[in-house]
Amino acid sequence: MATDNTITLFDLQLASGCTISPFVWSTKYALKHKGFEIETVPGGFTGILERTGGRSERVPVIVDEGRWVLDSWTIAEYLDERYPDRPMLFESESMKVSVRFTEYWLWQNAIRPWFSCYIRDYRDLSLPQDHEYVTLTREAILGGRKLEEVQAGREERLPLVPPALEPLRQILREHEWLGGHRPNYADYRALAVFLWTASVATAPPLTEDDPLRDWLDRGFDLYGGLGRHPGMHTLFGLKLRPGDPAPFSLDPPMSGLGRRNTGPASTRADLDVVSRGRAQVAAQARAGSASQ
Amino acid sequence: MATDNTITLFDLQLASGCTISPFVWSTKYALKHKGFEIETVPGGFTGILERTGGRSERVPVIVDEGRWVLDSWTIAEYLDERYPDRPMLFESESMKVSVRFTEYWLWQNAIRPWFSCYIRDYRDLSLPQDHEYVTLTREAILGGRKLEEVQAGREERLPLVPPALEPLRQILREHEWLGGHRPNYADYRALAVFLWTASVATAPPLTEDDPLRDWLDRGFDLYGGLGRHPGMHTLFGLKLRPGDPAPFSLDPPMSGLGRRNTGPASTRADLDVVSRGRAQVAAQARAGSASQ
Repeated sequence: MATDNTITLFDLQLASGCTISPFVWSTKYALKHKGFEIETVPGGFTGILERTGGRSERVPVIVDEGRWVLDSWTIAEYLDERYPDRPMLFESESMKVSVRFTEYWLWQNAIRPWFSCYIRDYRDLSLPQDHEYVTLTREAILGGRKLEEVQAGREERLPLVPPALEPLRQILREHEWLGGHRPNYADYRALAVFLWTASVATAPPLTEDDPLRDWLDRGFDLYGGLGRHPGMHTLFGLKLRPGDPAPFSLDPPMSGLGRRNTGPASTRADLDVVSRGRAQVAAQARAGSASQ
Repeated sequence: MATDNTITLFDLQLASGCTISPFVWSTKYALKHKGFEIETVPGGFTGILERTGGRSERVPVIVDEGRWVLDSWTIAEYLDERYPDRPMLFESESMKVSVRFTEYWLWQNAIRPWFSCYIRDYRDLSLPQDHEYVTLTREAILGGRKLEEVQAGREERLPLVPPALEPLRQILREHEWLGGHRPNYADYRALAVFLWTASVATAPPLTEDDPLRDWLDRGFDLYGGLGRHPGMHTLFGLKLRPGDPAPFSLDPPMSGLGRRNTGPASTRADLDVVSRGRAQVAAQARAGSASQ
């Protein structure tokens, strides 16, 4: 049992003190979900090897009663294995697969484009001693392009991201949390993407009225406002320009997906379509023969 | 207990006798997963109300010892509730949310574009008595456009779909099934999208070498080749033209996502980037001062 119910977490922070790494964000939520207090070891991108006594170059790292555990995913599994009597992060093995799926999807559709929109700010917001490290590693990821050059013109790219998030909105129309009635690690991994974004988003990525806002606000508010920090930016306030795509859909999901067949009364609309279609074809035929 | 271990299923078939509805496909797999034999009531899009004695206008419908159950999702829940001692379709409540997510994503990224590529064939392959119904209902979904007009030019659109399926490929690199070590309802709902496609794909939607092929082949082969039917088309053989996007990626997933931090040896590459970057900056500075 963790001493005094407290687990030590090595953080990855910006100059403001707010957490930036989505992996650390996931771990903060995981620790709170399991009911632990967090003792944070502050720090930025560099010096992790020194801070962890040579044990890791990356965070998150936790220390639980002298046991060091590295890697956000390994930490989540450790917490469920070591503390199975506390609320579970994963409900099943197959849930682990689906959480990975949602995460890959979010990285492709949100982090990847937003990375290009905020990468200069990301560097500028980091601790002064981290600027060189962030610049060199991120420019290597970007094939050698300068961060300034990559971020330029983001006003053209930001409006393209919200429409791509529609599958997440659809699911949050039907369910309070990705975990169902309660948040679990599925929510934390997804929220972490938006927490990362809020830590660097000097221009808001989502519109004021985005339907994701409800889930995001509830998620940021969890555990006494764990996702709120004065160094973070608002996600909401993206201004669309003429010609930008609709940022979200208010239509019901595609035919057949969003509702259940509970008998003929639930599917009446389709037969109406056929009746109207037949009437229209018949009317056209009558009009055609009348004009011949 | 189902009489003789057999449950009756109302099918939705094309003229070839192969199942078309993804919802019926999901139900066929669900019944086999629970270990039942299927007694199929054949039929197409029209006449469902008559076949089911006025109980439903839509399929799937099952009859289990005189109990009628409508709707693929309700049927799956019914099977787990009524037969909890047999292999479960859902491992947890939160898995239901994630299956919905994957499905919305697949409908947006696969069914929606493929619908526009195969909708005329879809009608032409249906039973003769269904042509009018399919035409009227699908043209209504399409805002009144003719099926022929919608399908036209599909050679331009087909190559755009495979790249969008990358999150599914990423997850199937790491896991044998969406259900983990064994297939479950997560696989069946996703396979159903491709089974639907194979039932109408008169031109193949995926390249011969698509990494999804392994999972798709294993999925179609399950339960004695449940997904194989002589009326179905191959999914593989899409020919790309110059300028088409790469259909899939062989790169590892985005930095930080695909591997675990197990200590400094596992993250060495990043520090190498920094060392190389510093050496490069120093060399440029030396070259700069030498040329001054």
